[in-house]
Amino acid sequence: MLAYGELVAFDRMAEDARLAPDLARRAALSEMAGAEIVNYGRVAARLADAGVDPSVAMEPFVAPLDEYHEQTHPNDWLEALTKAYVGRGITDDFVREIASRLGPSDEALVLELLHDSRYVRYAADEIRAALAADPSVGNRLSMWARRLVGEGLRQAQRVGVERDKITELLVDATGELSGVAELFARLTSAHTTRMVDLGLNT
Amino acid sequence: MLAYGELVAFDRMAEDARLAPDLARRAALSEMAGAEIVNYGRVAARLADAGVDPSVAMEPFVAPLDEYHEQTHPNDWLEALTKAYVGRGITDDFVREIASRLGPSDEALVLELLHDSRYVRYAADEIRAALAADPSVGNRLSMWARRLVGEGLRQAQRVGVERDKITELLVDATGELSGVAELFARLTSAHTTRMVDLGLNT
Repeated sequence: MLAYGELVAFDRMAEDARLAPDLARRAALSEMAGAEIVNYGRVAARLADAGVDPSVAMEPFVAPLDEYHEQTHPNDWLEALTKAYVGRGITDDFVREIASRLGPSDEALVLELLHDSRYVRYAADEIRAALAADPSVGNRLSMWARRLVGEGLRQAQRVGVERDKITELLVDATGELSGVAELFARLTSAHTTRMVDLGLNT
Repeated sequence: MLAYGELVAFDRMAEDARLAPDLARRAALSEMAGAEIVNYGRVAARLADAGVDPSVAMEPFVAPLDEYHEQTHPNDWLEALTKAYVGRGITDDFVREIASRLGPSDEALVLELLHDSRYVRYAADEIRAALAADPSVGNRLSMWARRLVGEGLRQAQRVGVERDKITELLVDATGELSGVAELFARLTSAHTTRMVDLGLNT
């Protein structure tokens, strides 16, 4: 799931970089995309080491993750940046939650996937600057962020229903089935805090 | 020129990766694209160190390099791979030619831009396997490679005419104006050798 998540995030962010209003911003989002494919390589190498073909392992996650991205095509640069920021934030929180349950070597690998705070800060600073320059942007980006999270949860639920192993991992990681709901609640709550920090409504 | 060359190569290879027939091949070309944006970062950092805004430095090369890519949209996976292979080969040869004339710190930087032989070998192996499986592909890819080189030379000429500094650098690197023609002859000849090695006609 993480491997395909990185591969498709690379693909979409590389495309979204074309929405940038200038070369410097285009390069910044392109570099964020580049970090995703480096992460893909780390996960794929770990899978191969474990005797698992990365393509086979990724296959079940292609449809839900593609569907998430199909439903969340950004229309402009700020939507692209907000998508990158929201997606990175939730993915990083999720990775931190599961890392400690994976055994030492996988834990170290998964923690390497956390996004460079430089990129996250860049996206946040850009969004804040845009809101300061034109506060009316806030409503649109707030709605956009809600849509991103709604679509993300919808696909996460689909993965959970179709893939028992993922649900088992999460139940195991959180101790009980109600723990999965609590995990989602924690992810949503941390996301809300980030949106408020940016100056967006949730 | 190198900075924008890397940035746009990243963009186009990331898009071309969608032509891959399966996830493993898509990931391989995506990782090649990732290497381009890492190289972009190296050149941009060097420009910034020298007090040059990378966006300003890149601006004159946007039109010719975009035009090259507009004229060379691959139609399928093999054309995409051939484009990556041909482009990387010629760019690497060019980089080696100019590196020794740039002074020690720039020489070291520019040599870092040479492409990982792993990627180059991957592309060559894929093309050879496709030719072995279906020799009739050879004619089409040979024509495609000729078109890539022709369009590349056309845009290189345009850059040379419009940018005296580049011509000066090359004259300086090769000792005399006729040296520039000889440089192009060496690049073309090395390209021809690579095509013959692959089993393509030139």
